[in-house]
Amino acid sequence: MVTDDGEREERIAGGGLLHRRALLVAGAVSAGGWASGLGAATGARSPDSMRAPGAPLSGYGAPAPSAAKIQRLVPNLPFPGSGSARTPLELLEGTITPNGLHFERHHNGVPAIDPATHELLIHGLVRQPLLFRYEDLLRYPRESRILFLECSGNSGTIAAATPVQASAGQLNGLVSCAEWTGVRLSTLLDEAGLDPAARWVQAEGADAAGMTRSIPLSICLDDAMIALFQNGEPLRPQQGFPMRLLLPGIEGNASIKWLRRLKVMATPAFSREETSKYSDLLIDGRAELFSLRMGVKSVILAPSFGLDLAGPGLREISGLAWSGRGRIRRVEVSADGGASWAEAALGEPVLPKALTRFRIPWRWEGGVATLMSRAVDESGAEQPRRADWIAKYGPGQGYHSNAIQSWRIDGQGHVSHVYA
Amino acid sequence: MVTDDGEREERIAGGGLLHRRALLVAGAVSAGGWASGLGAATGARSPDSMRAPGAPLSGYGAPAPSAAKIQRLVPNLPFPGSGSARTPLELLEGTITPNGLHFERHHNGVPAIDPATHELLIHGLVRQPLLFRYEDLLRYPRESRILFLECSGNSGTIAAATPVQASAGQLNGLVSCAEWTGVRLSTLLDEAGLDPAARWVQAEGADAAGMTRSIPLSICLDDAMIALFQNGEPLRPQQGFPMRLLLPGIEGNASIKWLRRLKVMATPAFSREETSKYSDLLIDGRAELFSLRMGVKSVILAPSFGLDLAGPGLREISGLAWSGRGRIRRVEVSADGGASWAEAALGEPVLPKALTRFRIPWRWEGGVATLMSRAVDESGAEQPRRADWIAKYGPGQGYHSNAIQSWRIDGQGHVSHVYA
Repeated sequence: MVTDDGEREERIAGGGLLHRRALLVAGAVSAGGWASGLGAATGARSPDSMRAPGAPLSGYGAPAPSAAKIQRLVPNLPFPGSGSARTPLELLEGTITPNGLHFERHHNGVPAIDPATHELLIHGLVRQPLLFRYEDLLRYPRESRILFLECSGNSGTIAAATPVQASAGQLNGLVSCAEWTGVRLSTLLDEAGLDPAARWVQAEGADAAGMTRSIPLSICLDDAMIALFQNGEPLRPQQGFPMRLLLPGIEGNASIKWLRRLKVMATPAFSREETSKYSDLLIDGRAELFSLRMGVKSVILAPSFGLDLAGPGLREISGLAWSGRGRIRRVEVSADGGASWAEAALGEPVLPKALTRFRIPWRWEGGVATLMSRAVDESGAEQPRRADWIAKYGPGQGYHSNAIQSWRIDGQGHVSHVYA
Repeated sequence: MVTDDGEREERIAGGGLLHRRALLVAGAVSAGGWASGLGAATGARSPDSMRAPGAPLSGYGAPAPSAAKIQRLVPNLPFPGSGSARTPLELLEGTITPNGLHFERHHNGVPAIDPATHELLIHGLVRQPLLFRYEDLLRYPRESRILFLECSGNSGTIAAATPVQASAGQLNGLVSCAEWTGVRLSTLLDEAGLDPAARWVQAEGADAAGMTRSIPLSICLDDAMIALFQNGEPLRPQQGFPMRLLLPGIEGNASIKWLRRLKVMATPAFSREETSKYSDLLIDGRAELFSLRMGVKSVILAPSFGLDLAGPGLREISGLAWSGRGRIRRVEVSADGGASWAEAALGEPVLPKALTRFRIPWRWEGGVATLMSRAVDESGAEQPRRADWIAKYGPGQGYHSNAIQSWRIDGQGHVSHVYA
């Protein structure tokens, strides 16, 4: 059923990329056929599942057995609680990450915290220090926002001399997206009363790493939240139960989990995690500190490494885009290694500081193709080419990698990671 | 710290309802104090969680131990797979329902289906019958939408002679909301080629109930979807794995799970599930058939039955609103049994045919109060009062209940379900 129907398909860039309109209008490409090998049929025997009652209702569901392989990617670690487990992005769809698959990144394991005894202290340059129990915070007005969270070290292997052959999730799965509900931090800081000298807030977690980060007060007074719920239910321990700081668009490490203390200060603390770590070594030997806001970025998930193409024909290229500066304005896709680009369709609603799904139809003729995506956000910032990103930083610097990535399809449909 | 500060609070309706602006502007009500019993503190001993490494990373997370009580409400049933398990709405936040807590309603249990052998047949009044394997459908272009799904029988106990004393989830938990990803049904019907006489589509599930429903073709060609993913991951068995029909805004029973067959027809099949069941007995003895679209509706979740108020003071009233006709335009809340109303704040983004969170600040002085909410959708349809809804239907009719509900707070803060 796969035939060429160039007139209706409206090719708009090299390598077989089609106008995104084809995704939206029924029939626009049906003469070309999305599927292959569909048979006509006049009826079908009732399956076994219709012959006996099924399983009972349940209190809390679980994934389908055949989806049990969809797991966070947990590496072998010398200290099994210190490291990161990545979201298997290429096996998921849409933009919301289910809570069980939201990436985790811990520095000394996941603490078990009793919400009845946990306390959050706000102190330092305030009129009145305040101590909040979990119960206290539950009385405050709440807001809900769909937001991405990305580890500063996500996609850091792009700095490697040769492209790491690994799945899109293994390379980029330190980003996830959820609906977070909590209390605006500005409400609590206002209640404590800020001293005129206040400029920074140091946040501390109740984990065995004693994780601390200094955050500009301007970010805390903007859209920062004390998150209490994720995708409807209370935070999970891996995400900071009973409460975490949540800084929209800011590197994940600063959204301190198991939050126990906010100290209002005049200057940053210059702790280990904001000097030795989580700072960006520049090409001239200096280091950029407090480069907190995540850049504009996109990754193609279908096709991607590990998801080889079974054969030529019409298919959808899709992936995710996001920016710490706000909404995604545009994502363009190339199938010829950057020689020509076509605009992808963006899934609605396009929300600020949230993942955005992009899709574009593509007819793969069976030849060699190099797929790339580049995103532009509403501030006008554009995702850099790898060479430009590399040129900015010193050797081994892997934080804040938002460079364009490339997948090469060979003549057999095998997908590999390449630098293009 | 709880003091009255009427000037800044701007009361806009009886019983202590405040302007919704107070939720959005830091400091607007802080002089009145959201919390009670907050102590000043100068420091705190490090908790035990900071003294030893925490738990390891994991492949698929689980809720916090203290949240283990947040479960779907499973009744005792003679056939444990035939019935419904409700979402505990009052224990959740935001608008997204985690997959483990999405309501289930089955007529003969949850079938175990192997996606490798499952097939979807499209036949009847079409140019060419088509048979799709799961693998085939995965090649088609996809779309993702955040949508509510509500059982036609949700909130049916509102027809009882006396108000049932039960939680908001037990009364109204046959509604949930998720990001669904799948293939537009119109794309598949277009590929099969519709006969000019086609007017209806009968959908059949592969469960042991052999569930079938007839759906107007106009709905199938509008925004209907063959859903394959829910909140990012493949559908769960309880939600129709490997594929279900998903009809935005339409009663849940018609979104046939474990979908195996779509028969295009000139007339409805008038099956049991669309004549004896899922039809609305009117007061004059006639029955309304194919009343498929869900009405505009809202429920208050905080406070609600089972969540008594600990004491007077400032708090947030919040709940959910939705409509099968599109977006929610407005939700109003009354604290005096409907004598006066105040407009609630709506959580952004307000999406069509999705749950919308509403919130309004409220100072409870400790007296008797009757809380109600009423929603208006973008079509102008308004949620009916219970008396008006009851007057339309015959005795015992409980489908499509979207009547206004009322919670009574007594002088001690105890919440009960009342008819007001």
